[in-house]
Amino acid sequence: MTAMDDWANDLTKLWDFCWQKLGRGAADAKSPLHRPVLATVGLGGGAEARTLVLRGASPSARTLELHTDTASTKVSELRATPLASLLFWDPKSDLQLRARVHVQIDEDTDGLWSRLSDGARSNYGGTPPTGAPILSPDAYDKTPQPDRLTRLVCHLQSLDVVHLGPEHRRALYARDADFTGQWLAP
Amino acid sequence: MTAMDDWANDLTKLWDFCWQKLGRGAADAKSPLHRPVLATVGLGGGAEARTLVLRGASPSARTLELHTDTASTKVSELRATPLASLLFWDPKSDLQLRARVHVQIDEDTDGLWSRLSDGARSNYGGTPPTGAPILSPDAYDKTPQPDRLTRLVCHLQSLDVVHLGPEHRRALYARDADFTGQWLAP
Repeated sequence: MTAMDDWANDLTKLWDFCWQKLGRGAADAKSPLHRPVLATVGLGGGAEARTLVLRGASPSARTLELHTDTASTKVSELRATPLASLLFWDPKSDLQLRARVHVQIDEDTDGLWSRLSDGARSNYGGTPPTGAPILSPDAYDKTPQPDRLTRLVCHLQSLDVVHLGPEHRRALYARDADFTGQWLAP
Repeated sequence: MTAMDDWANDLTKLWDFCWQKLGRGAADAKSPLHRPVLATVGLGGGAEARTLVLRGASPSARTLELHTDTASTKVSELRATPLASLLFWDPKSDLQLRARVHVQIDEDTDGLWSRLSDGARSNYGGTPPTGAPILSPDAYDKTPQPDRLTRLVCHLQSLDVVHLGPEHRRALYARDADFTGQWLAP
């Protein structure tokens, strides 16, 4: 049993610690927060989940940014139901972040394409589009298409933080309480 | 560039490989498939996600099993919308599994409690229930309550498999096609 981390017993410190982790997650491909899970409501009414790369985190705007292919099913899902969740897990600090977000689909990506590596570009575009049935496993072409790149700007509605330290801690930061924070039973 | 894995180019071998991984995920706490993400439709209409422990995987019944606290929000969510997703990621084989499931809430857990460790028991029960607002971070009691243990029996509707190998592969195994499998554009 080790002592509780200082940041885990104070709502303001915990909030700041989470944004520090999210900033690192966007900047550092080796961070465990670099690949969150995006959960959406599927077109069939159930929940869907997949892993994405975190591309940006702004504590002042309270936004998280992802990039995706306009032709992917998740874009259709988000047009129908923009309320989604991003789940992060940091094993080093035993911290789970659940960000409930309202997702804005921003197809104005001028200037963004030129900053992408060739490897990153191959994620956007291709024929047939991702998820389409094909007759053999390699019957697809992955030619990059700049007009298929889309930014998902995720506006934070609430952040639910669970710390599985020596004693469990849970806090909720909600937009309608101006993100001041509230302890919850873990 | 390494050669494609043998299991990644054949629909039957890929299916068997996935179930082998899922079985290991249920049995071995060190497996990366031991802690999948469960995505549900939230009571407010958006998507929710959290990490759970995989407790069972039956290739013959095509079920995956989780345990949770009856008082947790996810149980209310699943009563309202039983269609959910389980997301697994295995970094060693670059494999993402998206299991779309219909979740059956089974409160008949006789015999199960006696097989749980003290540590596991502390996940079920407590006052106030998980997610309730509290005034200070430690204002909760975690006395285990056997009647709060619930099994979530997840009946597979489809398994969407993405292999991010030297060439990407994607396959879908759907219940309505008797899980025979179909290649998709990745």
